[in-house]
Amino acid sequence: MKVNIAGAATTKFGELWRRSPRDLIKEAASNALEQAKIKPSRVEAVFVGNMLSSALGNQDHLGAFFAEELGMPVAAMKIEGACASGGLAIHAGVMAIQSGLYETVLVLGVEKMTDHSPEEVAQMLMGAGTDAEREAGATFPGLYAIMARCHMQKYGTTEEEMAQVAVKNHYHASLNSHAQFVFPVTLEKVMKSPKVADPLKLLDCSPITDGAAAVILTKIKNNEVNIIASAVATDTLGLSEREDLTGLKAVRVASQKAYQMAGISPKEIDVAEVHDCFTIAEIMAMEDLGFFEKGKAARAITSGKTKLGGSGPIINTSGGLKACGHPVGATGVKQIVEIYNQLKGIAGRKQVEGAKIGLTHNVGGSGATAVVHILKKG
Amino acid sequence: MKVNIAGAATTKFGELWRRSPRDLIKEAASNALEQAKIKPSRVEAVFVGNMLSSALGNQDHLGAFFAEELGMPVAAMKIEGACASGGLAIHAGVMAIQSGLYETVLVLGVEKMTDHSPEEVAQMLMGAGTDAEREAGATFPGLYAIMARCHMQKYGTTEEEMAQVAVKNHYHASLNSHAQFVFPVTLEKVMKSPKVADPLKLLDCSPITDGAAAVILTKIKNNEVNIIASAVATDTLGLSEREDLTGLKAVRVASQKAYQMAGISPKEIDVAEVHDCFTIAEIMAMEDLGFFEKGKAARAITSGKTKLGGSGPIINTSGGLKACGHPVGATGVKQIVEIYNQLKGIAGRKQVEGAKIGLTHNVGGSGATAVVHILKKG
Repeated sequence: MKVNIAGAATTKFGELWRRSPRDLIKEAASNALEQAKIKPSRVEAVFVGNMLSSALGNQDHLGAFFAEELGMPVAAMKIEGACASGGLAIHAGVMAIQSGLYETVLVLGVEKMTDHSPEEVAQMLMGAGTDAEREAGATFPGLYAIMARCHMQKYGTTEEEMAQVAVKNHYHASLNSHAQFVFPVTLEKVMKSPKVADPLKLLDCSPITDGAAAVILTKIKNNEVNIIASAVATDTLGLSEREDLTGLKAVRVASQKAYQMAGISPKEIDVAEVHDCFTIAEIMAMEDLGFFEKGKAARAITSGKTKLGGSGPIINTSGGLKACGHPVGATGVKQIVEIYNQLKGIAGRKQVEGAKIGLTHNVGGSGATAVVHILKKG
Repeated sequence: MKVNIAGAATTKFGELWRRSPRDLIKEAASNALEQAKIKPSRVEAVFVGNMLSSALGNQDHLGAFFAEELGMPVAAMKIEGACASGGLAIHAGVMAIQSGLYETVLVLGVEKMTDHSPEEVAQMLMGAGTDAEREAGATFPGLYAIMARCHMQKYGTTEEEMAQVAVKNHYHASLNSHAQFVFPVTLEKVMKSPKVADPLKLLDCSPITDGAAAVILTKIKNNEVNIIASAVATDTLGLSEREDLTGLKAVRVASQKAYQMAGISPKEIDVAEVHDCFTIAEIMAMEDLGFFEKGKAARAITSGKTKLGGSGPIINTSGGLKACGHPVGATGVKQIVEIYNQLKGIAGRKQVEGAKIGLTHNVGGSGATAVVHILKKG
C-alpha cells in the first residue's frame, strides 16, 4: 500500500473563541492545498473527522457543509468514532484512493469545543462511553484513572513517571507555535497541580481545544511522504468488559496489523504521534505499540529516550494531545500532519534529524477504537 | 467496478417502542449474514449509517458500540451525511472492498426516532440545514413545499399528481410486510389529509420511523447481485444559494457519474428505490435521474408507468420513504436491500418480473448530498 500525502496543515490549536468551524477548516484546507500545489478543483472527495458537531453545534450534515464552504461540490461525508474520528477519516481517505474511485481527496479534522462550558463538554464526551458508565457518573479522567491505578499496581508505575510524560510533551510544545500550551512545565508543577481523578492531576490531562487539520491524499506518486499502512481495530466500549486494564487491546491488534501491512517492526519507527489524552495513555501506548516491553515504558520515558535528542522513537514532537491540544475530531488528522512535517524535514525546531519512518496512534473513548497509520519517506 | 452483495436484510420498519438500536441492528445483521451464508468472523469492517445517535441518543461511538454488540472486534466507524447517511455508508463499504483493504464488510443503517417527541425530532432533523434556515424557523416539509410550489409554477404540476405518488407507494407498501404503513390510501384520502406545509399534506410526507438495515459486501465473486456504480455529489446546504428549485443538482451530477461508471443509460433501469421524503421529491427524482423529461414525470406517475405492472421503471416497490418508512440513517441501506431482493427475484408479491438492473437514490437534507448506486444481476 502506498498513498501519497501531497500536503498537510493545521490551524493554531487553542481557545479560539473568535473563530468558527468553517473558518478553521478553510484555513487548514487552503494551507494544505497550497503546500500540495493542487487546485481545489482537483479534489474529488472530502472526508471530515468530527465528533461533537451534532451535540454541540446542531449541525448534522458536516460533509456537505464544508464542501460548500470550500467551493467543492464533490462527494463528502462525516466520519465519526469518538476521539478517533480524525484517524478514521484518514483511513476512509486511504480507502478512497486505494479503491481507484478517487484520485485526490481532502481529509479534514475539526472540533470547536470551547464555546461551551467544560461541564457540558465533559458530559458530551461521555457519548463515547457506555450507558452504564454514564449512569455511574464516570468521566474520561475517571476511566483513565482506573487504568492508571491498574498499571501502577501491576508494574510499579509511579505518579512521577506519569508526570514525566507531561514534562516531555510540554517541552516539545514549547517548540511548536501551533500548540495550545507553548510553555514548558516542571515535574514539580505537574505533581502539585490539582487532582482531577486520583492519581491523575490537572497537568496529566489533555485540555479542551478548538482546532482543525487538513491532509491531501493522492494516488499520484512522488518521492516524498507516503502512508504505507492504515489499520483499525475495536474493543469493548466499556472498561468493565475487558480482561486487562493495563493496556488497550485494540491498539495491539491495529498496530500489529499495521506493522504487517508495512512490512516493518516497531524498532524501525523513528518518530510517532500517540494519543496521550492522559499521561498514563502515552505510557500504555509505548507498550501496546511494541516500542518498549510491558511495564518498562515509564522508566524509558523518564530516562529521556522518547524526548527530542533521545535514542528514540521520539514521541509527540507536536506536544501531543497533552500540550499541543486535543480538538477531538481534529487530533487524528493533526497527528498525520506532524509526522508528514517530520518526514519531510520541515518540522522546524522540533525536527527529529534523519526521521524516515513515522507512526500515528489515535484512540476513541477509553480504547474501544484504535487507528494506526505508518508513514514513510520516499 | 463490481462489488458483490452477499446478503441483505431489514427489520420491520415502524414505531418500535420496545426495541433498542442494538436490538434492531442485531436482527438485521444476523439475517443478512445468514442469507449470505457467511460467518460473523469473516466480517473485516463495519460501516454504520446513522444521523441522530448523538443528538437523540447521547451515543457518539456507534461503530465500536455495534461492533461489540455483534462480537466483531474489527474496524468500525459511523458515516454521517444527514438523511443520506445510509447511502454514504454503502459508498464507504464499496470503497473498502474496492481498496483491497477488506474482503468482506458489513454495512448497517439504523435510526431510532420515535422515543422522542415529533417536535424534538423535527428540530433535530434541521441539523441537516443551514443556520439561516433554522433561524427562520424552516422545517423540512416547509423547504420541500417551496420546491413543490416552484415545480407547480414552472411545469403545471398539481397537488393531485403529487398525491398520486403517495397512492402508488402506499399500494406497494401494502404488499410489503416490513413496511410501516401496510395499507393502501385513496387519492381522496391524501387530498383531504391535513396540511403540513402548503401544498404538502400529511400524506405527502414520509413518517418518523424506527428501523435498521444490513448489507454484506464482498469481493468474492458470484453470479448474483453486484453494485456496478457508486457515486456521490454535494450541493449548497441551503435552498437560497441554488439557481433552480425544481430539481436537485447533486442528484443530476451523482446519477450522471453513476450511469457513466456503469456504462448504461437511464432507460436500462428496471426498478429503483428513490428518496421520496415528500411526494414532490419523487417527482423531481424521476426527472433528475433521467427517467422522464423535465416537467413530464408527474403525468407519467399518474398514468401508472412507475407502479407495479407499469411499463417502468418501477419505483419504490418497498413503499418508499413515504409508506415503508424513513428511519433516516437506515434508508439508504434499506434501498439497497430492496433492489437486491428485486434483482435476486425474492421480492415476493411486490416482485418486478425480470428485473435485471436497479438503482438507488438517497438524498441528504434538502438536496445537499446525493448518493446513487446501480445494481446489476449477474
